[in-house]
Amino acid sequence: LTSRGDEAARQPGERALIDHIRRRLPPAPPSIVVGPGDDAAVIVPARGAFQVLTTDALVEGIHFDRRFSSLSDIGYKALAVNVSDVVAMGAAPELALLSLILPAGTTLGDLDSLLDGVLEMAASSRTTVAGGNISRSPGPLVVDVTATGSVRPRRILIRGGGRPGDAIYVSGSIGAAAAGLGWLRVAANQTRGLRLAAEDVMATCVRRHQRPEPRVRAGMLLGRNKAASACMDLSDGLADAVRQIAEASGTGALIDAAALPIDPAAADWFAAQGLDPVAASISGGDDYELLFTVPRRYKGRFRAVQENVRGLPLTRIGELTTEPGVLLSRDGEKSELPSGFSHF
Amino acid sequence: LTSRGDEAARQPGERALIDHIRRRLPPAPPSIVVGPGDDAAVIVPARGAFQVLTTDALVEGIHFDRRFSSLSDIGYKALAVNVSDVVAMGAAPELALLSLILPAGTTLGDLDSLLDGVLEMAASSRTTVAGGNISRSPGPLVVDVTATGSVRPRRILIRGGGRPGDAIYVSGSIGAAAAGLGWLRVAANQTRGLRLAAEDVMATCVRRHQRPEPRVRAGMLLGRNKAASACMDLSDGLADAVRQIAEASGTGALIDAAALPIDPAAADWFAAQGLDPVAASISGGDDYELLFTVPRRYKGRFRAVQENVRGLPLTRIGELTTEPGVLLSRDGEKSELPSGFSHF
Repeated sequence: LTSRGDEAARQPGERALIDHIRRRLPPAPPSIVVGPGDDAAVIVPARGAFQVLTTDALVEGIHFDRRFSSLSDIGYKALAVNVSDVVAMGAAPELALLSLILPAGTTLGDLDSLLDGVLEMAASSRTTVAGGNISRSPGPLVVDVTATGSVRPRRILIRGGGRPGDAIYVSGSIGAAAAGLGWLRVAANQTRGLRLAAEDVMATCVRRHQRPEPRVRAGMLLGRNKAASACMDLSDGLADAVRQIAEASGTGALIDAAALPIDPAAADWFAAQGLDPVAASISGGDDYELLFTVPRRYKGRFRAVQENVRGLPLTRIGELTTEPGVLLSRDGEKSELPSGFSHF
Repeated sequence: LTSRGDEAARQPGERALIDHIRRRLPPAPPSIVVGPGDDAAVIVPARGAFQVLTTDALVEGIHFDRRFSSLSDIGYKALAVNVSDVVAMGAAPELALLSLILPAGTTLGDLDSLLDGVLEMAASSRTTVAGGNISRSPGPLVVDVTATGSVRPRRILIRGGGRPGDAIYVSGSIGAAAAGLGWLRVAANQTRGLRLAAEDVMATCVRRHQRPEPRVRAGMLLGRNKAASACMDLSDGLADAVRQIAEASGTGALIDAAALPIDPAAADWFAAQGLDPVAASISGGDDYELLFTVPRRYKGRFRAVQENVRGLPLTRIGELTTEPGVLLSRDGEKSELPSGFSHF
């Protein structure tokens, strides 16, 4: 962890913040040769393994609202979304570097809360915080994380490995994070009484928005068992993920609306808002579930994964097709898969 | 390169920006198994090598001023400061991930300019842009870069390897970047005539602020030849670097003011501003030179480095001492090494 060379860095505070972070980090594993405190971290890569690297930022006012997420939630999620990208490649999480861009007035207590969340996610995903940097911000809080992982060469899960006829699966449930955020926004303008009435029902959805769970075990098992032909995470929603995998694999896709594992509380909430639960759930982002494809001949391997994911549902929702186009089958009719995204 | 899952991402633009970046990247080397466009990049680590990882952000209004640096300068410097950290470990630069946090109104032309600078630095330091992400910003422009490198196990240059009696060296010259930024700030309030009169004299200093040159060759040679016992870069100024190396090595240090390679134009400019050129040069940051220590017994190895750095001066400026304290010897008197930094 270093502070950047500029006049602002010469004000008291940044070095103290960095020392504070270093003191809170758990002991590093032996694969970390040089940890926080030098120009860079130095690690011993696992022998014969490929390395996976990804970076993603959470920006205040874009990705989170301080009214709806605590600093601890923000730290947790900033690492979680990166771990999700690592495990979507079939890799085991290894390291994280934190780049914290902190608004004026950030206290040691604020930093501790942020770090609480980061370290909680790091512990549960077995990720080591190996370095990073702190900068001041004249604007919003930005938590930028780089995460790495390691994967055996033949076990990498890319987006483009699917073939026509492969079954499309999704882990867990969809729609909860979008419903949770939607409810938080509506509730912010409601009376305390109305808010309290729905709080219990919406708690799981709100939690999914605040603290998404990357599917570490499922991703690693899919990779290890070579049980999927393609995989990605649902950061931008299920409809987007199906499109990306179909496009990268050079196939079409057909999704069965009735099979979608829509979170029940989310479905109720979307319906109460006058929204179509199917369209809202598949276009809503932030679910961080895994979407993956399973060829028929991988059935045995896939069963081994299902038996080891400890209760996480893996639901078949459709298949890749020879015909181009990404379609939704609903009540016997096929139409283009709706998407909240608009492209150029 | 991915866009983040949030409602903002659903507005047109981010995917187009990402596709645009991907089209501009040069062909990836064979060590990149999966490049931009999947959940994460996948690379083959060099066999038997350790891996070096660092991250550092440039934040508008803190690290740069759009009046003084073009977007191309900002892109160049954002990668340069990370490459500097990698080579300060004795490593060869390998990959970079870009995390771009772009204010509303950023055009494709803006992105191209930023990328011009990044790719210029990438080409000259042989760094491959392997991935990244784009987020919108409700505030300032942030260019956050993660860089990696590879180094043979015994060739790592850490900060804490110095011993009393080791000579302290610095590459290139110091003070230019701070003088350049100082002049830009003064000149911004001057008439065009006054500005033009000094522009030629200050051009090199200004360039050092806008586009620092990481000492790639020197760092790699020091590592390869095992010619230094400790090393770091001067991101926070020479005084800070001497302190950090002495502290990490458990030694004191004595610096000879007369030996310091202060940039002549910078020295003149500091003097004209009524500043002490020595104090201003050693407390000014952003030089991105290397500070390193050379034990007497490494003399032969160090000569091999000097013969191969292609004209870059490597100047002996003092030595590590048994007595604690970081001192400056000047006109026969010793005093504490001045520093622009104040610590808790």
